[in-house]
Amino acid sequence: MPHIALPEGLPGITGPFAFSPETAKPMRALAEILLRGANTLSRAERELIATYTSSQNDCHFCQTSHGAAAAHHLGGPSELAGNLALIAAIKRDFESAPISAKLKALLNIAGHVQQGGKRVTGEDIARARKEGATDFEIHDTVLIAAAFCMYNRYVDGLATWAPREQEAYIPMGARMAHEGYLSAPAHDQAQREEAISV
Amino acid sequence: MPHIALPEGLPGITGPFAFSPETAKPMRALAEILLRGANTLSRAERELIATYTSSQNDCHFCQTSHGAAAAHHLGGPSELAGNLALIAAIKRDFESAPISAKLKALLNIAGHVQQGGKRVTGEDIARARKEGATDFEIHDTVLIAAAFCMYNRYVDGLATWAPREQEAYIPMGARMAHEGYLSAPAHDQAQREEAISV
Repeated sequence: MPHIALPEGLPGITGPFAFSPETAKPMRALAEILLRGANTLSRAERELIATYTSSQNDCHFCQTSHGAAAAHHLGGPSELAGNLALIAAIKRDFESAPISAKLKALLNIAGHVQQGGKRVTGEDIARARKEGATDFEIHDTVLIAAAFCMYNRYVDGLATWAPREQEAYIPMGARMAHEGYLSAPAHDQAQREEAISV
Repeated sequence: MPHIALPEGLPGITGPFAFSPETAKPMRALAEILLRGANTLSRAERELIATYTSSQNDCHFCQTSHGAAAAHHLGGPSELAGNLALIAAIKRDFESAPISAKLKALLNIAGHVQQGGKRVTGEDIARARKEGATDFEIHDTVLIAAAFCMYNRYVDGLATWAPREQEAYIPMGARMAHEGYLSAPAHDQAQREEAISV
């Protein structure tokens, strides 16, 4: 049960977002820019950085929903199972996963940001540069990881409800990937109104 | 030296904010709502929650600047030294500091959010309620602490430059307290233009 009286039936961060729309607005805008705005990192790469950070923070809702969004960016329905398996491999041990050396270097930075800002070393940065990362890509990696240290704590610090099984996150990930983060899905709004009217 | 080429002469988070104005905008908006928006928690209480979280994350820039902002909210120039001493006592051991039982209960929640969202317990919440905290106050405490886990990592994960001595933060804290977070101070803009024109 959530620590405070959140609207019922809204999973993960969508509950506190509905509870506090004023703070949700800039938090949604930040996610939209970081994960879907114009960038030399692909949307899939950015969702993978968000997913990995969330898994290091042990946030079930964020790692599963953003993992599903990453899987949708990586390919169509026929590739979904394979992409979800790749994401599981990245969360388990990204250094041995079949991804680019550059993405490994950025996930290494994200993992250190998750532990604490001062854990990011000159060697981490040099490795990323050696693999071709630009200042903007390093900046965005640090900020995506930092931002998910906020989103993850918001979700778990209020003990929000979220589905356990991965299946529930597949359509959610598709909405996140293709419709974005700026507004609550119509589905959630309807569910909230229903919950309130009961 | 910062990990990426930030504009020179801008302390702490103001460097990355100038480097990436697009992401700075929602991050500034969130700070403004959380720390200065309409709230049943005073501005001083909210700055103290931000300061304490930042000290637990060992972020020198954030704990010193928000500590100075809190000190300005707590009283006028003649009370500044005493207020800064109170803030130092809160960072050292808030349970023994001369503050309200309610603020202690909220700082206890913030400290657990800093450790990780799942560290916030039902007992933490029950203690805050017993001291009169509302759902909105608990929500805002969790979100302020979560947000500073982002700001702190952004500042230190990029190895930004910041003054060491507390004196430099007194006018900065006054601007934060009285002018807010929405735009870069004219002083920083001028300093940046000067740094760029050199």
